[in-house]
Amino acid sequence: IDTVQGVADVVDKGNYRHFMLKEIFEQPESTARTIGAYVNALNQTAALPNGQTLDFAAFDRVYIVACGTAYYAGCVAKYWFEKYAKLPVETDIASEFRYRDPALTKNALAIFVTQSGETADTLAALRYCKEYGLTTAAVVNVQTSTIAREVDAVLPTLAGAEVGVASTKAFTAQLCSLASIAIIAGRARKVLSKKDEARLTDQLMQIPGLITQALKIEDATKEIAVDLSSARDVLYLGRGTMFPIAMEGALKLKEISYIHAEGYAAGELKHGPIALIDEHTPVVMIAPTDHLLEKTISNMQEVAARHGKVLLISDENGAKTGADTPWQTLIAPACDPFISPILYSVPIQLLAYYIAVEKGTDVDQPRNLAKSVTVE
Amino acid sequence: IDTVQGVADVVDKGNYRHFMLKEIFEQPESTARTIGAYVNALNQTAALPNGQTLDFAAFDRVYIVACGTAYYAGCVAKYWFEKYAKLPVETDIASEFRYRDPALTKNALAIFVTQSGETADTLAALRYCKEYGLTTAAVVNVQTSTIAREVDAVLPTLAGAEVGVASTKAFTAQLCSLASIAIIAGRARKVLSKKDEARLTDQLMQIPGLITQALKIEDATKEIAVDLSSARDVLYLGRGTMFPIAMEGALKLKEISYIHAEGYAAGELKHGPIALIDEHTPVVMIAPTDHLLEKTISNMQEVAARHGKVLLISDENGAKTGADTPWQTLIAPACDPFISPILYSVPIQLLAYYIAVEKGTDVDQPRNLAKSVTVE
Repeated sequence: IDTVQGVADVVDKGNYRHFMLKEIFEQPESTARTIGAYVNALNQTAALPNGQTLDFAAFDRVYIVACGTAYYAGCVAKYWFEKYAKLPVETDIASEFRYRDPALTKNALAIFVTQSGETADTLAALRYCKEYGLTTAAVVNVQTSTIAREVDAVLPTLAGAEVGVASTKAFTAQLCSLASIAIIAGRARKVLSKKDEARLTDQLMQIPGLITQALKIEDATKEIAVDLSSARDVLYLGRGTMFPIAMEGALKLKEISYIHAEGYAAGELKHGPIALIDEHTPVVMIAPTDHLLEKTISNMQEVAARHGKVLLISDENGAKTGADTPWQTLIAPACDPFISPILYSVPIQLLAYYIAVEKGTDVDQPRNLAKSVTVE
Repeated sequence: IDTVQGVADVVDKGNYRHFMLKEIFEQPESTARTIGAYVNALNQTAALPNGQTLDFAAFDRVYIVACGTAYYAGCVAKYWFEKYAKLPVETDIASEFRYRDPALTKNALAIFVTQSGETADTLAALRYCKEYGLTTAAVVNVQTSTIAREVDAVLPTLAGAEVGVASTKAFTAQLCSLASIAIIAGRARKVLSKKDEARLTDQLMQIPGLITQALKIEDATKEIAVDLSSARDVLYLGRGTMFPIAMEGALKLKEISYIHAEGYAAGELKHGPIALIDEHTPVVMIAPTDHLLEKTISNMQEVAARHGKVLLISDENGAKTGADTPWQTLIAPACDPFISPILYSVPIQLLAYYIAVEKGTDVDQPRNLAKSVTVE
């Protein structure tokens, strides 16, 4: 087992009942550490760690390749890179990418996202891209891992050792690295001004404090979890960057509670999944205040009109907009849309955790799952 | 209501219990008609209908934008265009594409896939791309529709009028159009030789006959459906082009039986969904004979080792490879991997149909759903 940089003897549960809960509560520190590796708070600038450089102005495209939770981090990053750096991104599942004869451009950067740095399909995809001649980078937690050793640039996450099989702090650390890299790319490509960089890095610096606030919904989440623990199926819906967060929320619930949860783009609701909606299928709508709020709220009303039981996860303003329609509302602190995918990871983690605890499953070692998938 | 080209008074159920079943059984004719619009059987060549041209050698990329079932047709097309034309494709959900500030390249072709040609989010995405200056095309069934009128090139599907809310023959017609277009692009880009074109068009010409054979599994499907109709949840797994077919299979089941089905890339199984597997969650593995068969069979064995009940959908050779592991096997005729996504649409349609019939739902008019989604 490789060690994780910057972390010594942290691998006990302390006062927490499970590693997963401990790791959820470590996120103010793990995100601060990771952001600190990319962002100079004093100058309000971002740069790759350890003096590394990547010529983002020269790339015409980024491929992000990963598995599981890391794939959803890559899905969020697509929105960031395209919006803030006008750099086209294709995010792909490693087991699909490596076997599908992908048509790749030559001037692309390939980023591999992996906690362990040993994920078999991701490693195979990396070797495929190297053979093709692409520049490669890894957003990776274990910096002595095979993938970290084989890439051109190591983009570290400083999450510390993650013991819970269901990834939490490694996921938010991946998001923090990728958000920082998007800023760096945006500056290099002259899409972002110095002022934009200052504003966005400042947003990133607020994350640890905002997560600390968001963790206060723990008690409210516990109560909701009691009720949701009897659900057989749950739908998670979101738009924009909340779409991958919905998929990640569903994956968390699947992994540790064995409840069949599915994440969906809220705009796709009417193209199929709305047929599932009745009083027995709770729907988690993730809808922070942004340019998509009203559209997601309108989807929520469609769900409610079919007697669907809606848990709205939003901020004060979103809760006001949602009014009496939701069955329950979990309120996160208000934040800039840039960082909302990082902040909204917290309520979906707590929700999955407390539903699993309520069900009495083995949260840290869920059935059938391994921490890192080193075989195909 | 706009009329569908080439179709007169076909809108009655004939001897079929539901329109959906009738439309499933019409697929030998609807695919033949659609393929016939693109393929010259005598010369074994493919060309766009009505003398239209698109300069595929000049495009550096294709965006395929759609909703629901049509989106899954676009996901299959990505594999085809990249493999047979070395033309990079990004397939996107219309409601996400239009709001996410996509970073688009200028020399791209944008293809919109829609049965009705009136899908609101798809129409908005089309207008976005036109404003951006892209060449646009529509794979569309209703050729007098708004989307058909607004695009540069109309790439017709000749499915005929589809009455069942859950799309069947429109989906396979979309696949037939897209497969033909991939051949045309491959020739224009000199990836395919004249001989390749002859071989692939010949494969397309075999589809109607193969579908006729595949429809013979109806009785076997009925029996399996009796058992599966009591499932609360079903997972559909596939690799390569069978991944989108797994998602489409799950969508069909959701739409008409209200069973919560989810499609997943088989390679992602170990990254989460395997936690759901126990004796109560049937798994449909779609695995024709191709370069991925062994890997999917290995996933099947992992499912079986966790007491998952596997329905394998494959051909004679795949059934032999799967041996005694599956709970049941549905055997489709052997075919070239190029056309397997079209052929394997048939068993998943029949399966969803007979499960819904067994459950007694309103197959042609499932709850909460409309045939075409003309509002956001």
